[in-house]
Amino acid sequence: MSTRPSTWSYTARSEHYLKEVCPHAHQHSRGQRWRDRTGSDGSNLARNLASRDGNTVAIYNRTCTRTEELLAEHPDAGFVAGRTLDEFVASLTQPRTAIIMVQVGTATDAVIDQLTERFEAGDIIIDGGNANFHDTIAREQRIAPTGIHFVGAGISGGEEGALRGPPIMPGGSAASYETTGPIFDSIAAVADGEPCVTHVGTDGAGHFVKMIHNGIEYADMQLIAEACDLLRTVSGHSPTTIADIFTKWNRGPLESYLIEITAEVLRQVDSATGKPFVDIVLDQAGSKGTGVWTVQNALDLGVPVGGIAAEILAPAVSGKPAQREAVQRVATERPAARKVDASFSDDVAKALYASKVVAYDQGFDVITAGARKYG
Amino acid sequence: MSTRPSTWSYTARSEHYLKEVCPHAHQHSRGQRWRDRTGSDGSNLARNLASRDGNTVAIYNRTCTRTEELLAEHPDAGFVAGRTLDEFVASLTQPRTAIIMVQVGTATDAVIDQLTERFEAGDIIIDGGNANFHDTIAREQRIAPTGIHFVGAGISGGEEGALRGPPIMPGGSAASYETTGPIFDSIAAVADGEPCVTHVGTDGAGHFVKMIHNGIEYADMQLIAEACDLLRTVSGHSPTTIADIFTKWNRGPLESYLIEITAEVLRQVDSATGKPFVDIVLDQAGSKGTGVWTVQNALDLGVPVGGIAAEILAPAVSGKPAQREAVQRVATERPAARKVDASFSDDVAKALYASKVVAYDQGFDVITAGARKYG
Repeated sequence: MSTRPSTWSYTARSEHYLKEVCPHAHQHSRGQRWRDRTGSDGSNLARNLASRDGNTVAIYNRTCTRTEELLAEHPDAGFVAGRTLDEFVASLTQPRTAIIMVQVGTATDAVIDQLTERFEAGDIIIDGGNANFHDTIAREQRIAPTGIHFVGAGISGGEEGALRGPPIMPGGSAASYETTGPIFDSIAAVADGEPCVTHVGTDGAGHFVKMIHNGIEYADMQLIAEACDLLRTVSGHSPTTIADIFTKWNRGPLESYLIEITAEVLRQVDSATGKPFVDIVLDQAGSKGTGVWTVQNALDLGVPVGGIAAEILAPAVSGKPAQREAVQRVATERPAARKVDASFSDDVAKALYASKVVAYDQGFDVITAGARKYG
Repeated sequence: MSTRPSTWSYTARSEHYLKEVCPHAHQHSRGQRWRDRTGSDGSNLARNLASRDGNTVAIYNRTCTRTEELLAEHPDAGFVAGRTLDEFVASLTQPRTAIIMVQVGTATDAVIDQLTERFEAGDIIIDGGNANFHDTIAREQRIAPTGIHFVGAGISGGEEGALRGPPIMPGGSAASYETTGPIFDSIAAVADGEPCVTHVGTDGAGHFVKMIHNGIEYADMQLIAEACDLLRTVSGHSPTTIADIFTKWNRGPLESYLIEITAEVLRQVDSATGKPFVDIVLDQAGSKGTGVWTVQNALDLGVPVGGIAAEILAPAVSGKPAQREAVQRVATERPAARKVDASFSDDVAKALYASKVVAYDQGFDVITAGARKYG
């Protein structure tokens, strides 16, 4: 297809850990980190691209052995290996299109600079990472004089989404979208027969919307953690019973990937101790990146996001073990599980749903304010 | 005194409005803004300086007429007028020391650049405004090669504090503090016989601490507003009765300037309508500047400041009149005032005190984390 360039690139992103764990959301396991083994976002997106008719995907990694490994692991993908950046760029048909999937920050700038030196006017550089939208705006302005298009695209769904079809929130110029739109459509998730792709605006708009998308998701994770906590401490339910409740919830209006994997995580048992995994996992979390940016930018825009802020800040408490220990010395008595009505879990479901609506609404408010200011 | 330079400067700061109003904190009056009429922070700080033994204060404003007005209004202050910046700089004895009190941002940079061109190594430029501490760090680095000292000093207390004696939080180098310390000591507020001045650290530390100081203050204002709201809607008290309660609180552990002026504001009656002032003042507020920065930097530092965040974000709700109207159309019933025990106001006082402790503690946590990160 003429709208699809025949070659693509990715460069390896740093390792990505499963972050959706309940009830103490955003955790890492104590000894062994729960490492994703399906591949990185970048390699999976490349495999997704290669699996579509008419696509040939070129791969370049800073470390050549990673490219060779990928080719060896997926011989059917038809990847073209770029052993040097020059070789990679030479292998692309014009107009060249490259998706970069590298660490946010200076690594992104380095790759953009290297590509800009080798690309020509009309070529397209797509940043598929979670860049700060302010950086995306600045990069677009910096590159504009060369005539090369720079597109910041929010790509959701993690490694699995990258492979099977992610929701995509591209920014960038209307001209670049004529080329990139059909490509994004072909690899994206599909809902109700439509690809989950919207050209949300120019320059930084894609990464802005992705930031809010993540902010809402982190809020949702914290809300799910709090719902689990209510079912555990107030109702006194076991992790397995809570898992059953979540499985039930996943057949109603709360249906979502996070609810689904929460049930799955709650059913995990630690093989060494025989205890529920959620009871032995280290209950410490950080709150960084897009979630933090969501609240910071809402503050810049004067949008009241009290719900999201509370949910983004809550995990940060978990990251202060010394303070938590000090509090536990003072507050030695924990409230005992109370006898609650069987309808209590329905109330928790309603509260969770209402809180989700609040988080979404606050997120949409920030997008509206952002469109007005940066639009 | 040899430690005190004989001349000082200020340049006019934009108009400053009274912001501590309760129960709808941070308000402006509907028709006529409640404009401070005692002078600006800059002119009052200059008057404070001039009133101390041995000081002669030179004044420079971008608009010459403001300097002339100030000299005419305060003939006893002995101000030396700098009609041009060159004249102002020439009037200073060496080492020159200048306090700049101008709008945060580009105006500050412009004045710093103008002074840097004319000052010499060993001279001192003090920024007494509410600069973002990141900017202060950058300015100090930018000026350092000239040998001129740059000092970011947090100065609290508004116009009245500036005149009578403000709490001062200076940053800057130890060398500059040998000169500036005694000056700050001489003009500062005094508590328990000690001047309220601490050299809190180098470069941006002064403005960092002032930012947190303001963040805590804004939190306090919102907490006071919420306490007023409880006394109004739950107890059904009139503004005058609530004023009496606040006057009583001001004789106990809650004693503070904000509690004092809350009582004063609650007693104000609008002369046009005869209604309590708090019922006719426009209940809209913004949340910008140091309060917002406090939460944004806490997020950068990973410090959980849930209390302060909720209190900084709450006033932002008031700034969305369309959304508030929509909510009021849905939620038409307001809870009626309940019969509460006479001890209810004591409970509110305790809750206010406890919430203040939380806000202070969260603020100190951010300072600790800031000191660790920015040294």
